[in-house]
Amino acid sequence: MVITSSTSREGAITSSVIVDTANSDYAKLRSLALSAVTLKGGFWEPRLTQMREVTLRQQWDQCESTGRIDNFRRASGRKPGEFQGRYFNDSDVYKWLEAASYALAVEHDTSLEEVVDDLIQEIAAAQSPNGYLNTYFTFERESERWADLTNKHEMYCAGHFIQAAVAHNRATGKRGALEVAIRLADHLCVTFGPRARQGTDGHEEIELALVELYRATGNRRYLDQAVFFLDMRGLTPPLVGGLPYHQDHLPVRHQREVVGHAVRVTYLAIAMADVYFETGDIDLWEAVQAQWRSAYERKAYVTGGLGARWLGEAFGPDYELPNQRAYSETCAAIGGFMWNWRMLLVTGEPRYADWMETALYNGILSGLSLNGREYFYQNPLADDGAHRRQPWFGTACCPPNVARLLLSLPGYLYSTSQDALWVHHYAAGELRFSSGNHSGVLSVKTEYPWDGRITLTLVSYQGAAGESTLHLRVPGWCSSPRVTINGAALVGSEPGTYAAVRREWKAGDVVEIDLPMTVRHVRSHPFVASNYGRIALARGPLVYCLEGVDHPDVDLRDIRVPATTDFHAEQDPDVLGGVYVVRGRAYTRGPVEWGGQLYAWGQPSRSSEEVVMERTLSLAAVPYFAWANREPGQMQVWIRDEQTS
Amino acid sequence: MVITSSTSREGAITSSVIVDTANSDYAKLRSLALSAVTLKGGFWEPRLTQMREVTLRQQWDQCESTGRIDNFRRASGRKPGEFQGRYFNDSDVYKWLEAASYALAVEHDTSLEEVVDDLIQEIAAAQSPNGYLNTYFTFERESERWADLTNKHEMYCAGHFIQAAVAHNRATGKRGALEVAIRLADHLCVTFGPRARQGTDGHEEIELALVELYRATGNRRYLDQAVFFLDMRGLTPPLVGGLPYHQDHLPVRHQREVVGHAVRVTYLAIAMADVYFETGDIDLWEAVQAQWRSAYERKAYVTGGLGARWLGEAFGPDYELPNQRAYSETCAAIGGFMWNWRMLLVTGEPRYADWMETALYNGILSGLSLNGREYFYQNPLADDGAHRRQPWFGTACCPPNVARLLLSLPGYLYSTSQDALWVHHYAAGELRFSSGNHSGVLSVKTEYPWDGRITLTLVSYQGAAGESTLHLRVPGWCSSPRVTINGAALVGSEPGTYAAVRREWKAGDVVEIDLPMTVRHVRSHPFVASNYGRIALARGPLVYCLEGVDHPDVDLRDIRVPATTDFHAEQDPDVLGGVYVVRGRAYTRGPVEWGGQLYAWGQPSRSSEEVVMERTLSLAAVPYFAWANREPGQMQVWIRDEQTS
Repeated sequence: MVITSSTSREGAITSSVIVDTANSDYAKLRSLALSAVTLKGGFWEPRLTQMREVTLRQQWDQCESTGRIDNFRRASGRKPGEFQGRYFNDSDVYKWLEAASYALAVEHDTSLEEVVDDLIQEIAAAQSPNGYLNTYFTFERESERWADLTNKHEMYCAGHFIQAAVAHNRATGKRGALEVAIRLADHLCVTFGPRARQGTDGHEEIELALVELYRATGNRRYLDQAVFFLDMRGLTPPLVGGLPYHQDHLPVRHQREVVGHAVRVTYLAIAMADVYFETGDIDLWEAVQAQWRSAYERKAYVTGGLGARWLGEAFGPDYELPNQRAYSETCAAIGGFMWNWRMLLVTGEPRYADWMETALYNGILSGLSLNGREYFYQNPLADDGAHRRQPWFGTACCPPNVARLLLSLPGYLYSTSQDALWVHHYAAGELRFSSGNHSGVLSVKTEYPWDGRITLTLVSYQGAAGESTLHLRVPGWCSSPRVTINGAALVGSEPGTYAAVRREWKAGDVVEIDLPMTVRHVRSHPFVASNYGRIALARGPLVYCLEGVDHPDVDLRDIRVPATTDFHAEQDPDVLGGVYVVRGRAYTRGPVEWGGQLYAWGQPSRSSEEVVMERTLSLAAVPYFAWANREPGQMQVWIRDEQTS
Repeated sequence: MVITSSTSREGAITSSVIVDTANSDYAKLRSLALSAVTLKGGFWEPRLTQMREVTLRQQWDQCESTGRIDNFRRASGRKPGEFQGRYFNDSDVYKWLEAASYALAVEHDTSLEEVVDDLIQEIAAAQSPNGYLNTYFTFERESERWADLTNKHEMYCAGHFIQAAVAHNRATGKRGALEVAIRLADHLCVTFGPRARQGTDGHEEIELALVELYRATGNRRYLDQAVFFLDMRGLTPPLVGGLPYHQDHLPVRHQREVVGHAVRVTYLAIAMADVYFETGDIDLWEAVQAQWRSAYERKAYVTGGLGARWLGEAFGPDYELPNQRAYSETCAAIGGFMWNWRMLLVTGEPRYADWMETALYNGILSGLSLNGREYFYQNPLADDGAHRRQPWFGTACCPPNVARLLLSLPGYLYSTSQDALWVHHYAAGELRFSSGNHSGVLSVKTEYPWDGRITLTLVSYQGAAGESTLHLRVPGWCSSPRVTINGAALVGSEPGTYAAVRREWKAGDVVEIDLPMTVRHVRSHPFVASNYGRIALARGPLVYCLEGVDHPDVDLRDIRVPATTDFHAEQDPDVLGGVYVVRGRAYTRGPVEWGGQLYAWGQPSRSSEEVVMERTLSLAAVPYFAWANREPGQMQVWIRDEQTS
């Protein structure tokens, strides 16, 4: 079994890959086309079906009703009126277009295709003859184009269009959007550059988009332009205007800590990794590795959320991770997922896949309601009942970002390398591979993430003789993994590795993976003040939380979990559409001795009244991603451990 | 001994009192004049001397060099140029004028008096013929006067001038500033009112100033106007524009939680209590009591700091009290101090004096460097070494607020009620009282807050026959207070009460108070997530902290304090000018088992390496108010308790 991905640069068509590494000398892994993967049953197929049938439509309706589409009709002169909404609203439409393109890559849908084709026509009509494209800076604001690069998001919007256009081209083979994107990119290349205007956007995005446009077209001009935009950062001394908020305080190669606006940070890191793929620029790679350690070893929520602070939607210093006051923007978790994907493609190291999984099943999925119609912008890890998902936002970056991420999920499950197939994430369905002398179908049966048992069957296989390797990710959370090939145990599969099965494959081969899902008491590094003396419950890749609705008459803040508590999980068809609920015994201790006091001293007097107040109770924890889908109430991820104070 | 304060309303002069309750039917206590109190030695005299000789001059220089004084010269046409700084900069000058007036009330200073007289002339010259006064809204911006009440702080500035003018009049007997204030207040009364324009300022201050102007002039119009401005809040539905940020989301009588901008909250509460003094409006009183409980039972730092959030300089929800990310603006602690003073004057209840003391010795005093020349705007309770005091700020509300508070401190030490003298705060010096048939001198000897022993001597006394009462505050922090009168023990003095000594006093009577200062392990209500599993060290009214400079080669976050640790305090002449240092044994446990991990699970494996890393060390804690006066480094108020996790 030898699989290589098709390449958009060489072939006419082209299939939808998520980061095309086909010609990247510095990437260990190759991406696979979305269309090679079919999800069948399990956890993900119903969710992606809902995404296509419900969420994409709901988001389109929101884009229409909020004037986001009319802004294009206005810019092209087809419809009168004022620009509606905020100056970066075009980007929401572009992310929706990217999401819709992924949907079209997987399943034929005439009505969606018509909407998409019409939209692309509207966008094309809104483009200026010189290639400029932004519906805010038209007519009365045309003179303000490129006037305020730091704040006005023009390149950010351009980058999202370029990403969408590449995705649309790869998904459908049509070139309409891509031609618009090329004209737009050419306009950028003419306007900005070493021998033109020096400057870059306050919100990164254009850089990663230009790298992908280079991959899609083979035109190195776009790669060079991406490098130029990266190198424009940090040239203005901070006191004059270069701010950490925009990652503009230092040259990017010297940025080793993640600071400022979290989504921006992830998009910058993605671009740095992307450029490394293509150029082998080791300084960029070392910087982005340091940034990764800063983010994921000191500043990430246990849910994969990034960006602790509301003020500036930003990273705080190391270990500043408040729970109720978490910002943890859905977009930042998504950006982190995409960033880890690049790190994984370069290295094949499983820790990046682990953080992708953590973000996907927790901090990203929490951004979407179970009904597929409501969204979280912020994803706190504790709440008093006030934080609820909304159908849309004035600044609506998150909803279409969730859509494009989930609809492209099949592209993130597998990769290939020389003589090898890598399985990063386990989702029920089929992979059809066909490349060179090798073709076949691999079926995956699993209820993951509810159950850790996965069965991979090589349903059919035709290929050249010789051994090849199947790399199977053993998540870091699994302490006793077990892998068998046709019933024979594989020796030496360790947590947090890829188990490598090298053999001469034949049709009918069966690989069984068992990743036992015990309930884990997760602790934080002790410098995380918010979580000190607390545990979080996790099972498999899922972080759990307590919700008030499952614990009537209890203040969740009073609950203490004894270290000895043995939790078990079982599917409950009555809870949240049938999630696995984690159950165990705990007890409450109310702060009765405190009365109206905020501070006290002396020995805590454990009065008889207080002892009376201690009572045991049954805890029922639900997956964090599913919280706030019932009536409003308290929520807590981090629960008080058993302690004296 | 019967003392009543002089009243500005009846007599020609008038002495400088802090909130004149002489004619307030609903205040239990009467204020005493600053000039009745002389500080001698001890903790406070050197600080107030420094305040007059160093701080007031440094602040004046800053007001000059930043154009704040020139703004007045420009407004009067005496000096050309542009308005400099921010639209509320006048208020900093007014607070400085108030502070300087308190200095003049206590000590003759010809050169200061000249500066003050000149300043008042500049201000008077800048006033419009119709009474309007604000140097920002002159010339090119005259048409914008009162155009944006929510955001432009015009009444806020006016209020600070009125406060300053009343203070100046009381301190010096001169009427120049007061006449300007009366014209300004009259202009406000004509412009806004039930039969004029409806509206009030986005930043409270005018209300409390108008009540004090009423007290100073006896003109009830100003009291009515204060009530009008209070009642203007909360009339705009929140969704239309009335925001919690400005305490404009509900009518003030229905506001029972403190929300929004913390300084605004305290100034509103002060005004509500002030109006209650004068009118007996029980709805206002009940609301402000509820607000007090919200602030001090659920939202106050152990330092007396208020306002947890950077975003909006605002209160968060109950128990949201981050340490390193604390905002805790110096001005908010000062506002809280002044608020508690009103609550104390109404009720005579010691808890309000306790919080005044806590704020004074911790969250307020921390706002000023030991050299009297640098200031904190935010007062975090933990730091990595980056937060340092500055000589001034673009928004410079805090420096002159510290100055006016500390220079008026003598006015907050004592009060009287019928047949009684109240001692709220212990400061070495003398009180000269003279009222009706009673006069005399009470001397106070103490090293408070370093030492809890206080000796009060009735140095001289002439008065009518009959008993009178001395109320002596026994702070809530003192578990074993002891009071003797001429050597005989007073029975029944309890922590958190006023010990009442009722007798027929004579010259030579000596009252000795002993408030033993053990080092307390302070704990927080368990809902304060930031402090869970932590203690703070306190001694007497002082909260202590650890600083990196005293613990070389140790990460303060690794320190654990065993519950059994016995701390002792001793004065160290080499530390921070001779503070009492709290010393005891603790140990460190480094997070060696964590490596680069942020989260872990399973049993904590206490490896031999980790045991090696545990080492005992000598802790040396210094008063929180004195932190950041040496080289930069870590600081922590809340220290990890001994725990398993």
